[in-house]
Amino acid sequence: MKQDVVNDHKARAAAWFEDLRNRICAAFEQLEDDYDGPLRDLPAGRFARKSWRREAVAGDDSDTGGGVMSIMRGRVFEKVGVNISTVYGKFPAEFAKTIPGAAEDPRFWASGISLVAHMHSPLVPAVHMNTRHIVTTKGWFGGGADLNPPLPNDQDTADFHAAFKAACDAHDPAYHPRFKEWCDEYFFIKHRNRARGVGGIFYDYLEDDWEKNFAFTQDVGRAFLDIYPKLVRRHMNKPWTAEERETQLIYRGLYAEFNLVYDRGTLFGLKTGGNVEAILMSLPPEAKWP
Amino acid sequence: MKQDVVNDHKARAAAWFEDLRNRICAAFEQLEDDYDGPLRDLPAGRFARKSWRREAVAGDDSDTGGGVMSIMRGRVFEKVGVNISTVYGKFPAEFAKTIPGAAEDPRFWASGISLVAHMHSPLVPAVHMNTRHIVTTKGWFGGGADLNPPLPNDQDTADFHAAFKAACDAHDPAYHPRFKEWCDEYFFIKHRNRARGVGGIFYDYLEDDWEKNFAFTQDVGRAFLDIYPKLVRRHMNKPWTAEERETQLIYRGLYAEFNLVYDRGTLFGLKTGGNVEAILMSLPPEAKWP
Repeated sequence: MKQDVVNDHKARAAAWFEDLRNRICAAFEQLEDDYDGPLRDLPAGRFARKSWRREAVAGDDSDTGGGVMSIMRGRVFEKVGVNISTVYGKFPAEFAKTIPGAAEDPRFWASGISLVAHMHSPLVPAVHMNTRHIVTTKGWFGGGADLNPPLPNDQDTADFHAAFKAACDAHDPAYHPRFKEWCDEYFFIKHRNRARGVGGIFYDYLEDDWEKNFAFTQDVGRAFLDIYPKLVRRHMNKPWTAEERETQLIYRGLYAEFNLVYDRGTLFGLKTGGNVEAILMSLPPEAKWP
Repeated sequence: MKQDVVNDHKARAAAWFEDLRNRICAAFEQLEDDYDGPLRDLPAGRFARKSWRREAVAGDDSDTGGGVMSIMRGRVFEKVGVNISTVYGKFPAEFAKTIPGAAEDPRFWASGISLVAHMHSPLVPAVHMNTRHIVTTKGWFGGGADLNPPLPNDQDTADFHAAFKAACDAHDPAYHPRFKEWCDEYFFIKHRNRARGVGGIFYDYLEDDWEKNFAFTQDVGRAFLDIYPKLVRRHMNKPWTAEERETQLIYRGLYAEFNLVYDRGTLFGLKTGGNVEAILMSLPPEAKWP
């Protein structure tokens, strides 16, 4: 592919992730403003932004990109992080072997958005969403979203799946069955023999048609932006019990176990000098293993 | 070595771990009884015991041992687990290659005691202790203890190190410098670029002289039984602030990170079908990543 086409693709993908970040943060701040639940006496939360530069590593370029964390600790969102990053450089030799198109040439470029929300109310599901575009000698999109309710609610689960099914079906009828199953397989806590949450979609290595895959990735972001705030509004003003909060804190222990023991991104980041604060923003603000 | 000698060694080691468990549990219950601090209105804690059998795996024997968990949730000890186990069978082929003496013959026998204490008071250090005897075609002892204060206290640290230095020096003057350094290397949270705690000792593969190594391992247990309750008594009745408690909960987040990302025993156990409840007893009862 011509370099100017690749550069155009990179620029459009990175701009989209930034735009999606802005829209999500605005929608979440609106939820904070509209809140009228048990913690209404707290101030409405606002996102704080913090940028970071990726550290140059041996044999790598000096300017290797970076990212911006957006963190909010509010009255609906106990802790939510929306990270965007665009990083580039060379993969370490051993790691390059495991990445499509990098064995021949270890140079890479990667841009994406990653979001984890942990909620005050145990009645409001926690959520994770991430989409990314990676370029080596190949170029592909990946990502997904999954719902993590401490107290699963069948209607929420059905609506969340329906939103992503619609986003998938608009592009390829084969997507949703495949990506829903992939999500269930990926977010499984083997040592607990249970799923982390109630699922969603997970996809990776979409590289057949850039425009098609970019449009799909955008629709995944839009589906998230549409459905998740609806689920939050559905439950956010309801009172909860101490017992429900305890269930949530114990559920968060499982969530932390998954992220620290199994999550590919977390482990890769921690073991290769990624931005620790950004990576571990996914951990719950409070958790219990009683 | 003659089989009856090996059998005698196994029996004596397993009996010691059980005896040490009994003595530690009695000492910890005495601390609960003697407590006169901020949570004195809670009932004094008592250990509850729960035994488990190791699950037979493909190609393994049907009777493969098991263990006994002793758990106490008290007014000094927020959550403490003292596990003993004696398990045997065959290592999976890939794993056998990584274990001394198992490449030739994958059969193993392993017995040990493992203890983690998380305290209510942020002024009382948390602690970890483990000693074990493993027999393949070789046989060796390993273990150690390390102190994990949320708010480090120089006198506690000095006394803890002195106790294990005395235990080491009685057996070999080269032990303490080596095992203290090994502890610092092992309990290091690389992604945080900091130690998990203030150290102690860590040793492994002691196989030169069974009687000498068993006597040393017993003295490590005795040193722990002597020093740790002293450190608890030194601080347990003092009041603490909400800010100190918050520091403790955040410190426990780091502790959980180490155990789930790096700890050899935890990861091996989780990924090979060990007893999940016993393995994860080490996780803190409550932790924060604010």
